[in-house]
Amino acid sequence: MQEACLIEDIEPLNEKSMAEAKERMDNLVKPIGSLGKLEKMSIKLSGITGELYNNIEKKAVIIMCSDNGVCEEGVASAPQVVTATQTVNFIKGVTGVGVLARHNNCDLKVVDIGINEEINHSELINCKIRKGTSNIAKGEAMTREEALTAIRIGIDLVSKLKNEGYNLIGTGEMGIGNTTSSSSILIALTGCTIEEAVGRGAGLTDEAFEKKKKVIKKVLEINKPNINDPIEVLHKVGGFDIAGLVGVYLGAAKYRMPVVIDGFISAIAALIAYRLNNVTKDFMFPSHISIEKGYNLVLSELGLDPILDLSMRLGEGSGCPLAFNILEASTKIMNEMATFEEGNVDLNDYKGLWEGKI
Amino acid sequence: MQEACLIEDIEPLNEKSMAEAKERMDNLVKPIGSLGKLEKMSIKLSGITGELYNNIEKKAVIIMCSDNGVCEEGVASAPQVVTATQTVNFIKGVTGVGVLARHNNCDLKVVDIGINEEINHSELINCKIRKGTSNIAKGEAMTREEALTAIRIGIDLVSKLKNEGYNLIGTGEMGIGNTTSSSSILIALTGCTIEEAVGRGAGLTDEAFEKKKKVIKKVLEINKPNINDPIEVLHKVGGFDIAGLVGVYLGAAKYRMPVVIDGFISAIAALIAYRLNNVTKDFMFPSHISIEKGYNLVLSELGLDPILDLSMRLGEGSGCPLAFNILEASTKIMNEMATFEEGNVDLNDYKGLWEGKI
Repeated sequence: MQEACLIEDIEPLNEKSMAEAKERMDNLVKPIGSLGKLEKMSIKLSGITGELYNNIEKKAVIIMCSDNGVCEEGVASAPQVVTATQTVNFIKGVTGVGVLARHNNCDLKVVDIGINEEINHSELINCKIRKGTSNIAKGEAMTREEALTAIRIGIDLVSKLKNEGYNLIGTGEMGIGNTTSSSSILIALTGCTIEEAVGRGAGLTDEAFEKKKKVIKKVLEINKPNINDPIEVLHKVGGFDIAGLVGVYLGAAKYRMPVVIDGFISAIAALIAYRLNNVTKDFMFPSHISIEKGYNLVLSELGLDPILDLSMRLGEGSGCPLAFNILEASTKIMNEMATFEEGNVDLNDYKGLWEGKI
Repeated sequence: MQEACLIEDIEPLNEKSMAEAKERMDNLVKPIGSLGKLEKMSIKLSGITGELYNNIEKKAVIIMCSDNGVCEEGVASAPQVVTATQTVNFIKGVTGVGVLARHNNCDLKVVDIGINEEINHSELINCKIRKGTSNIAKGEAMTREEALTAIRIGIDLVSKLKNEGYNLIGTGEMGIGNTTSSSSILIALTGCTIEEAVGRGAGLTDEAFEKKKKVIKKVLEINKPNINDPIEVLHKVGGFDIAGLVGVYLGAAKYRMPVVIDGFISAIAALIAYRLNNVTKDFMFPSHISIEKGYNLVLSELGLDPILDLSMRLGEGSGCPLAFNILEASTKIMNEMATFEEGNVDLNDYKGLWEGKI
């Protein structure tokens, strides 16, 4: 597969539309800048779509689900089969992200990109590359070709959603063991320490946490990923879920769709996409400050600033539907607030004893 | 007016309901605690209502509007008539809070509690005490009796909304000059410095900002409010809007309604209510981190932790509708997520070549 074609055809934000959007925003009945990030989000959306007024009509959280061979090292607190059972629960709509998505009227797109089990359901998007990655404590997670295939899956899915009328997407994942991959990637891409990059995932004991850090040290010693080659980092120490999400971010930029980042693992995929092509960042909207260790470091690498602080660490894309509501709010500020001219009320019209004239 | 009766009849959170809620929350298909503040909000709601499952059906932002005599000192960047014009714009639904309220399906309750102008409209709740407070740089803002009347207005409004079926309220305000009152209250209640308490409001120049600080120094020297008497602080250096909101917080606790705090001024009213009766805090939910100076200090006095970080400083109650959506989400987590038992999928049911069985 041609690598370059995956990261090409990405145009920057439309500066003219953003200038127009800024001008209108500064003319709405409020002190300039007083709606803070809502103003910035709305202007950024104009840069993405090229439109002053945006309406978010169809939204989806893409959940990439896959297994990780490194689980055999005992790095996760949950049994590996939970990847498959939660995938089914996503389809049933009974997990955290399912409930939150229904609450804010958005769809889930659940993708099997490498689950160990065979699951058949009409609502599950079957793009299985193989049953789980290889154990990264013993060698590379996947071949370079497999990583590119996973990225292509993500890009193509965004293209399909764009054609179906979606205009806002979010990134979620499910894969027992995927914080181990994510922390390995973070260290490989930034040179940060293990202490800065590794957290307790879904909830490790002290002992298991120490073990996880030792495994990650081994992962990096064995694979020696090249800091300047994000695809190498991805295929050597990543996961199919992360690789698929890298594709989602690249696709979002290519097809000009705003894309919301969920927590630590989603953010790691965002960082790889950013390293492949810096312009992808301009299509990303962070949602919440995950309390998984390493999250803040990734966001500061990306130079992005989250809008929610909910002390969450669930993953699944659970932060996305809540952020979607706020992004939608930002479009309505632009579309529905009065300008100073429109809001300059003649109070004489509201004096006297009559009522209901407005 | 009997002062004691305003702060009595407030029962603590229902511990039994909260224990039940915590038990269910810990049994949902997610790592314990991984939904962070969403879990805590939902449990707190159970403590307020005494119900395990809560449904938020009707929501309103109460906007207390009034003028401040201290404007004659030149402490505000906007002309005083903006209080009245924005009040009309609230009713028209074209301000920031109006747009955000419509977005999240909540009503505005706009109260004239002391606007300088006469505005007549069927949707404006007329509770005018008088046309604006007196200039606090020259003496007390209002009499003690007037402060108690304003508090009673807030309490009674919550009672009325409760009877109309509302089960979630938020606090907003409009009053040119009201950050001057709020900062004065903050210093009077906490003994903090002028530098810690005073910000630029809607957007003062350097010169006007220095003047505002000098005026606040004078306000405190002339009025000498007693740090141990929150009602005295309120009537000497407060505003009718703030006093009305103090009543809203007291009413929320009395009538067991969750109440969302907007920005700096709303938080100042929350602090007064808290000082009058500590239990009121358990009915409060902070929304966003306002970037108006002093906000963080008030929230740390209250021991509350906001959920949104949007760099907003608009006031009007604009943070409330966004927080409402998240509070509602928290109830749905409790009501709709599967327990581990329910979510324990038999994967054999999803194997093979058939489809669509779920």
